[in-house]
Amino acid sequence: MVAAESPQIHPVVLIGGGPGAWDLITVRGMHALQEAEIILADHLGPVQQLDKLCDVASKELIDVSKLPYKRQTSQEKINELLIEHALAGRKVARLKGGDPYVFGRGFEELQALTAASIPVEVIPGVTSAISVPALAGVPVTQRGIVHAFTVVSGHLPPGHAKSLVDWQALAQSGATLSIIMGVKNSAAIAQALINGGRCASTPVAIIQEGTMASERVYKCVLGDLAETVRKEQVAPPAVFVIGEVAGLNSQDAQ
Amino acid sequence: MVAAESPQIHPVVLIGGGPGAWDLITVRGMHALQEAEIILADHLGPVQQLDKLCDVASKELIDVSKLPYKRQTSQEKINELLIEHALAGRKVARLKGGDPYVFGRGFEELQALTAASIPVEVIPGVTSAISVPALAGVPVTQRGIVHAFTVVSGHLPPGHAKSLVDWQALAQSGATLSIIMGVKNSAAIAQALINGGRCASTPVAIIQEGTMASERVYKCVLGDLAETVRKEQVAPPAVFVIGEVAGLNSQDAQ
Repeated sequence: MVAAESPQIHPVVLIGGGPGAWDLITVRGMHALQEAEIILADHLGPVQQLDKLCDVASKELIDVSKLPYKRQTSQEKINELLIEHALAGRKVARLKGGDPYVFGRGFEELQALTAASIPVEVIPGVTSAISVPALAGVPVTQRGIVHAFTVVSGHLPPGHAKSLVDWQALAQSGATLSIIMGVKNSAAIAQALINGGRCASTPVAIIQEGTMASERVYKCVLGDLAETVRKEQVAPPAVFVIGEVAGLNSQDAQ
Repeated sequence: MVAAESPQIHPVVLIGGGPGAWDLITVRGMHALQEAEIILADHLGPVQQLDKLCDVASKELIDVSKLPYKRQTSQEKINELLIEHALAGRKVARLKGGDPYVFGRGFEELQALTAASIPVEVIPGVTSAISVPALAGVPVTQRGIVHAFTVVSGHLPPGHAKSLVDWQALAQSGATLSIIMGVKNSAAIAQALINGGRCASTPVAIIQEGTMASERVYKCVLGDLAETVRKEQVAPPAVFVIGEVAGLNSQDAQ
């Protein structure tokens, strides 16, 4: 037996929960949830139907997107909670929407845990940026049409002082663009891409709440993206796919 | 009972099997394998340990990467087999490595099946382009460093008549590059990126056979990519990650 004052430390497991539907988590991710004693979960991913993946009643569940004292739990607070529970000897699972390393701040959590000498296991997830279009009938690549795609965060508008995205280069690359967190900045993003040389007639697919029963899909062209978002009252979470693939049809001749 | 001459047609399920490790398939994918009567599988994905996911003995398994009469089964032949077995009333699963729509030719199979009036269900998978780096400790995005990543096929060298990739624009975008199928063309790809303006000192991670027991990881810089591939005898399947994230360390201060 390990003495109470120095509990055995278990690795914290950073799990990619997938785009939302409960069964789009990996088998490895499901097993990690089953092993966990405490689960810190986001509002995205399979958190609404966690009972289909593990015996929720036997676990402590902390919704870190909705703690009462803040509208949104800060990353620092999440790191603190992960470290606190791991050091207490508990088996901690950190369940994130999508993939932990696709804008998931997963590596920051890894770094914070490593700094506290806590081992970490990362379990990749199906990213919304690819799977949400796929389940709406849009392939991000297609032989003979496009051999590259870029996943980009639209949370900062083009030209913003803190933006790290070269929208002009992305416009010129010809790669399919899968934009997440872009609803608020859709007008500025579309304009930056058109200014950068992407044709205003480029097909666009907008998918809101992909993989869920509440999914809504709209097709338009790049020049009409902002107007479509406005008219249809598109709200987060949503994915924009910009490129010829957004205009493909399963009935098209190959 | 349906008459033998007009069997009930079941949807063909296109399953993303993930990067290789058997438990990185989704729960939905595993369930679809369990339901299937016949599985057409690639050589990538979880095919080596399929028995951990379903009762293999009760199913017909066709390895479409290794049919005896050809070194590699043609896409046309795969489409024919999918259609033939579906029209015979069998429950057909098409198991692919990674994600069906990330260079997986999944949409071409969807189109061929749709043309034959056969319904299709697509089940996304964890793509190697993100998960292989993740499990080797490389996040494709990191807050404050890079807010975009591009997944690109390196199967054609830059400048090839059939290439659809604008390597110069990708060099200039600053996005993390995750290159799959690039081993053969590593020298030309590195040179094109440097010519396009990406710094020769950009960190690179090379991951061969990621997520498998045989995984090998090398770190270098863009200017040394080709030499590292040559010296270490890197062989497919391999992923190259090019960008500052390839130089991050879990011990780095945030």
